[in-house]
Amino acid sequence: METTIREGQGHGAKRPRQGPRRHFGVRGQGSAHPPRGMGRPRGGMRREPRQVPRRGPLDETIRVIPLGGVEEIGKNMTVIEYKNEIVIVDAGIQFPGDEAPGVDYIIPDTGYLEARKSSIRGLIITHGHLDHVGGIPFIIEKIGNPPIYARELTAAIIRKRQSEFPHLPKLNLNIIEKEGVIPFGPLLSARFFAVTHTIPDAMGVIIETPHGNIIHSGDLKIDHQDGVPLPHEVEIFTAIGSQKNLLLLADSTNTEREGFSFAERAVHENLRQIVSEAKGRLIIGIFSSLLERIIYIIYTAEELGKKVVIEGRSMKINVEIAKELGLLKPKKHTIIPVEEMGSHPPNKIIILATGAQGDEFAALMRIANRQHKHIKINKTDVVVLSSSVIPGNERDVQKLKDNLSRQGASILHQDVANVHSSGHAYKEEAKWIISTLKPKFFIPVHGYHYMLRVHGAVAKAAGIAESNIVIPDNGMIIEITGGGEKIQAAKQGAPAGIVMVDGLGRGDVKEVVIRDRQVLAQDGMFVIVAVIDTKSGKIKKSPDIISRGFIYLKESQDLLNQTRLLVKKSVEDSIGPMRPINFDFVKNNVRETIGKFLFNQTKKRPIILPVLLEV
Amino acid sequence: METTIREGQGHGAKRPRQGPRRHFGVRGQGSAHPPRGMGRPRGGMRREPRQVPRRGPLDETIRVIPLGGVEEIGKNMTVIEYKNEIVIVDAGIQFPGDEAPGVDYIIPDTGYLEARKSSIRGLIITHGHLDHVGGIPFIIEKIGNPPIYARELTAAIIRKRQSEFPHLPKLNLNIIEKEGVIPFGPLLSARFFAVTHTIPDAMGVIIETPHGNIIHSGDLKIDHQDGVPLPHEVEIFTAIGSQKNLLLLADSTNTEREGFSFAERAVHENLRQIVSEAKGRLIIGIFSSLLERIIYIIYTAEELGKKVVIEGRSMKINVEIAKELGLLKPKKHTIIPVEEMGSHPPNKIIILATGAQGDEFAALMRIANRQHKHIKINKTDVVVLSSSVIPGNERDVQKLKDNLSRQGASILHQDVANVHSSGHAYKEEAKWIISTLKPKFFIPVHGYHYMLRVHGAVAKAAGIAESNIVIPDNGMIIEITGGGEKIQAAKQGAPAGIVMVDGLGRGDVKEVVIRDRQVLAQDGMFVIVAVIDTKSGKIKKSPDIISRGFIYLKESQDLLNQTRLLVKKSVEDSIGPMRPINFDFVKNNVRETIGKFLFNQTKKRPIILPVLLEV
Repeated sequence: METTIREGQGHGAKRPRQGPRRHFGVRGQGSAHPPRGMGRPRGGMRREPRQVPRRGPLDETIRVIPLGGVEEIGKNMTVIEYKNEIVIVDAGIQFPGDEAPGVDYIIPDTGYLEARKSSIRGLIITHGHLDHVGGIPFIIEKIGNPPIYARELTAAIIRKRQSEFPHLPKLNLNIIEKEGVIPFGPLLSARFFAVTHTIPDAMGVIIETPHGNIIHSGDLKIDHQDGVPLPHEVEIFTAIGSQKNLLLLADSTNTEREGFSFAERAVHENLRQIVSEAKGRLIIGIFSSLLERIIYIIYTAEELGKKVVIEGRSMKINVEIAKELGLLKPKKHTIIPVEEMGSHPPNKIIILATGAQGDEFAALMRIANRQHKHIKINKTDVVVLSSSVIPGNERDVQKLKDNLSRQGASILHQDVANVHSSGHAYKEEAKWIISTLKPKFFIPVHGYHYMLRVHGAVAKAAGIAESNIVIPDNGMIIEITGGGEKIQAAKQGAPAGIVMVDGLGRGDVKEVVIRDRQVLAQDGMFVIVAVIDTKSGKIKKSPDIISRGFIYLKESQDLLNQTRLLVKKSVEDSIGPMRPINFDFVKNNVRETIGKFLFNQTKKRPIILPVLLEV
Repeated sequence: METTIREGQGHGAKRPRQGPRRHFGVRGQGSAHPPRGMGRPRGGMRREPRQVPRRGPLDETIRVIPLGGVEEIGKNMTVIEYKNEIVIVDAGIQFPGDEAPGVDYIIPDTGYLEARKSSIRGLIITHGHLDHVGGIPFIIEKIGNPPIYARELTAAIIRKRQSEFPHLPKLNLNIIEKEGVIPFGPLLSARFFAVTHTIPDAMGVIIETPHGNIIHSGDLKIDHQDGVPLPHEVEIFTAIGSQKNLLLLADSTNTEREGFSFAERAVHENLRQIVSEAKGRLIIGIFSSLLERIIYIIYTAEELGKKVVIEGRSMKINVEIAKELGLLKPKKHTIIPVEEMGSHPPNKIIILATGAQGDEFAALMRIANRQHKHIKINKTDVVVLSSSVIPGNERDVQKLKDNLSRQGASILHQDVANVHSSGHAYKEEAKWIISTLKPKFFIPVHGYHYMLRVHGAVAKAAGIAESNIVIPDNGMIIEITGGGEKIQAAKQGAPAGIVMVDGLGRGDVKEVVIRDRQVLAQDGMFVIVAVIDTKSGKIKKSPDIISRGFIYLKESQDLLNQTRLLVKKSVEDSIGPMRPINFDFVKNNVRETIGKFLFNQTKKRPIILPVLLEV
């Protein structure tokens, strides 16, 4: 499947052919925050949230609990709890690295929520990227299937993904309308504001509490010209900044990087130039999640009289969704099936393909490996990698570039041609956001610990008192007490284990299984099968040995023969006159003896499995 | 062990307190190439090379065969062959990634050389980094233990490494003196020139042939001021450029990067400022292979009245070698043992530590993980990561930064403070090198295929005709024919397999073992033990099942019971009335049936090992 999640590390685009971005959070142009309670009845929701019995802590403390996304890039999930009202922001997944081989996803530990199901008023999803929506199928039942609130595109993506898990009950999915307010209960309600990211309908969340607003930025960057935020950004953020903002939780992904991020507008201009100047076929490798840029490229191609081929399952799905929602309205013959490619001159063809990360089975890698049924690289092809390289994928991307260039394609990538930009605020943007929103308290989210620390320092530089900044860990219960006067971490945290989803296992992969996989990957396994005559305590015939991933046994006959002799001796010495035979004792002896012997001979420590059978 | 190899991806330093770099290759200041044959008798070698009987191709073709280093960063090895004289440049190792789990090193395939042992006149080592020297212990016997030629520091590193393999015969190691010439035979000889890299005694090689010089750049960058090469570089390269240069093989590692590399001198200045301004302890994480920078830091500390603690085995070894050779002459109490650290104020302490790549057992990671006996992080510590991040190590380095900052340390790294620079020429340097040396033919080496392509384009821009440029693969036999008139790849290549070194296996890891490890890492294993009554063809009692790395069996009793029933049915159905029983047939049936069943149930494909015992 696509590793869409960290694609979040990209981009921030404007929808093409559209006026100023829709303001759907801040009611009215530049309007100040209306008095609490006002406007709630007109709340614009298709469905009213469930009324649930009150439960949970009833003191004046507001609790903010990041369940994921603050010790990693991925699996974002934040809980806001006040008395018996719980609101959740996002439910993402993370793709594991070498530390969890064979595992499909890591999801947030929802133990805290499972114990407080009845207080949960809703799950708000800020945008349609997998590190924000991907966890829904794995957690939604566990937390009592609460109502989900999302903008239209986000909801469509959630619905599409959910359809891949037919055994799950129907979601309680609610579309957030323009200027919508969600009245969760008597205490908490939420409003929204549009943010610049890389996918349409990305938003930040304002949770209104009796002590002031809790603002969650979602993933965002600031649209700017040479470091000056554009008017529509200024308007939105200034309006929110004039309210009583108790706390800001903000995206830390890129706040280590100095200055302002490269403007998506400039990426668009560069791509337009590349598209217009292409003398051969253009193959653009891009994350399927960068939907704003994908839409831009399709419209640009259309304008310049070119045809677009969409390659890769996730890309096809996303383009289809965009069309269904009217975010993309191409002319009838702009997007063509790959089979039709041959009937147009090469310089009229643009192929949009998944796989810019070197994912083995994605379209671009299949093209590079000459395994694509319809697309063969030739010397006039130009491949544009309109993406960043996700940490850990460097070797795969290198292989991709090697294989493409070996067949003669020219390659343009981020380092040489500004064909990509991140969707996350850089340091100066982060500083501007904090200075403009003027929250009392600050919690950096979305990032590894060091990134959060750096973002914390940015907040300090933006004027937040150090004692008002909390650097969170997953599961940390951060309490705002004294009627919004003080912030600090509680001594006791919420459960924050590593919950893994593996095959159809759905979160039940145990760490011992992962540890075994790691050992197996390094040193392999070594199975010893011996049949023991329980009367004599002797081994009947020579023990069988099966090994995988250790050494190549066919070329190690000497070692094998020595091992067999040693197994026989170890078994028979361990048994001696002992009757009945304690097989566990014998097995442990064999494991230890053979383990030592093999290590001395090979410096490898395979998993040794003695199988002793009695006859 | 230290992953010193790709550290080559760094740096390029000048030795401190030393006049202009010694010219030990080009004889005399700016001298032109003396007539062939001249000067050979005074050749400056401690030992004369062996005289071997003539063998091999006797036509006029010069053959250049990169055995490693042209489809990867690492395991550099190039063969130059003319008639019955073979000269080899470098013998490196590569550290494998996920594609070869559990493997220690990958080394060049020396099959071509093993078949031509008697023609081998010598192995020249350009500098002491592992991607150039590391392969010696694993290949030197296989190619007939030929004489090795290296500069003094390089030789000391080779000797030290060889001492870790006591079973190997003594090396035939020869020190290249200043202005040395090695007369390999009547046809080939070699001279050398100093290059700027990151370790003292780095050099390029000029192999003189009857048809002109073959120049091998080694690893290098160009010392420059604002893009203008410094006089000592100009002098060396201009002198060589005035000769008859048939072919240049040059380092491609960084030629994708635009402009000039960041000057090491500027890195030194930045480090000096950091050292002088440090208000607490300074912990500098640095590759042990960046010996020029390490020497600079030690001298700077001394000058500023500070003490230096050396942490990490490879760092200690390298500093010791530098001291032995007089490259580093610190005052008596500049370098102190870690135990003595407490008797100096923190702002007088500099710790030089290995492990800037997040290597689990290296000094810096042990410090970060609170596992270091003597060094505990506190809030006044500043950690400087004077290194790049080797592709693939991003998550480990992130963890390192997270753990250090969690304990309160401030961190300075390449992205924020220019505390590191690469040791490999960027695009403009590469162009300058080619323009100045003016070779007839060009072969880019040291890099992945795409990097070589880019370097090829640079050569074209520098004036080399496209037909005179060959982009090599490992094992490609590149022939220069017609008395130095034409260059092209031969149809038949030399052996170029992936030779792996694993534990004590020394190059005999088979691909099937690696494939098994990959499957085991993803999906684990599943052993089925069944005892069969050969008479009845029935299974005696319920089959045993052992699994590792698959799913957690203790929580999967249902699946286990179903599997046992299915095993019984599959075995007994397969046997039916068949006598004698074909056990392979039965095993295959069981493997297939259970494989399908487990995949349907879990979406995992463990390695299934049926063990059938007859009674």
